[in-house]
Amino acid sequence: MKLYDMRQAPNPRRVRIFLAEKGVEIQREEVDIVSGANLNPGYLAINPRGVVPTLMLDDGQMLDESIAICRYIEGLHPEPNLFGASPWEAADVERWQRRMEFDGLFNVAAAFRNTAPAYAERGAPGAGPPTPAIPAMAERGQLLARQWLDRLEERLEGRDHIASDRFTIADITAFVCLDFAKWVGIRAGDQHPNVAAYHARIKARASSAA
Amino acid sequence: MKLYDMRQAPNPRRVRIFLAEKGVEIQREEVDIVSGANLNPGYLAINPRGVVPTLMLDDGQMLDESIAICRYIEGLHPEPNLFGASPWEAADVERWQRRMEFDGLFNVAAAFRNTAPAYAERGAPGAGPPTPAIPAMAERGQLLARQWLDRLEERLEGRDHIASDRFTIADITAFVCLDFAKWVGIRAGDQHPNVAAYHARIKARASSAA
Repeated sequence: MKLYDMRQAPNPRRVRIFLAEKGVEIQREEVDIVSGANLNPGYLAINPRGVVPTLMLDDGQMLDESIAICRYIEGLHPEPNLFGASPWEAADVERWQRRMEFDGLFNVAAAFRNTAPAYAERGAPGAGPPTPAIPAMAERGQLLARQWLDRLEERLEGRDHIASDRFTIADITAFVCLDFAKWVGIRAGDQHPNVAAYHARIKARASSAA
Repeated sequence: MKLYDMRQAPNPRRVRIFLAEKGVEIQREEVDIVSGANLNPGYLAINPRGVVPTLMLDDGQMLDESIAICRYIEGLHPEPNLFGASPWEAADVERWQRRMEFDGLFNVAAAFRNTAPAYAERGAPGAGPPTPAIPAMAERGQLLARQWLDRLEERLEGRDHIASDRFTIADITAFVCLDFAKWVGIRAGDQHPNVAAYHARIKARASSAA
């Protein structure tokens, strides 16, 4: 297998942390989204949507979408379980993973993509028609990402992890989003002691360096 | 269990179709998002994010996020399997489900929420600060939803279903999105014969009336 990756980008980082938690090593190839390498014909032949990460399997099948890649790895390497075991735990992890994505990651991404000069004509990720940056979308992203941070502070009151009572994929998404949010000036402040302590806890795991 | 539902809205419909495919009946209560009933204190006490659907369990636990609710039902009622069985199939279904959500549903929702008069100050769903409609975001949503439709046409060439080789949650999201897209004037045209035939096929299932 081979992972098309980008060192700086949040979604590939989720997969790298997941692999590190599983103790699985996969060959990686860097695709530089900032310069548009993901839109070159060579990469589009691998993934026509032009997004990373992409996992290329040994049989030539391609798999994209970070969480789908993680779920595939979970199927091949079930331990340690990171998507939940019982029906309730699997649903709880799914719910919180999605909240971290939709309320956190997507809003931070909206704030970032619609202000970063490199993406002035690529407000939406991947291949497709030009999508000029929309400043109002960046503002809304800022507003809602801050709401996500406040809600995360509440959620973490008396808890070590986001979902269930142990480390899961929901923590990977939350942690990656917290680091990504700094790019747009959003970080845990004095009013977010639970988030700050949580971030330090997850960062202390060896996988955080992935 | 009790499902907080909204007849017209696409996300609750996904859950209703899922339940119908499983042959599971759950008590339902209507929450009218258009008039803002989802933002009333009574509903916010049930789901502080103010979104539907929400599943209330008999033990008082609350579960939101459509796909998390569906995954919980899948855990309780494994057959017919709708999320994939083998590691590869589960990953393939996850990948396509997410593409249908992110490339389809989210873009149609952006086109809809940022133009519908009822949502002039609620461009983003759920509870939170006012989010005035962003016309440029609706335009981008239109553009990208049409790209999704074109890609779906390609995907369905020679295929009966979106993922794997059978009906799955990816088809539920795609079908619901195709109906939702009509609200913003996007529908399969002469250049989308595969999508039109696919829509008719899925609509012929009894669950489509749910």
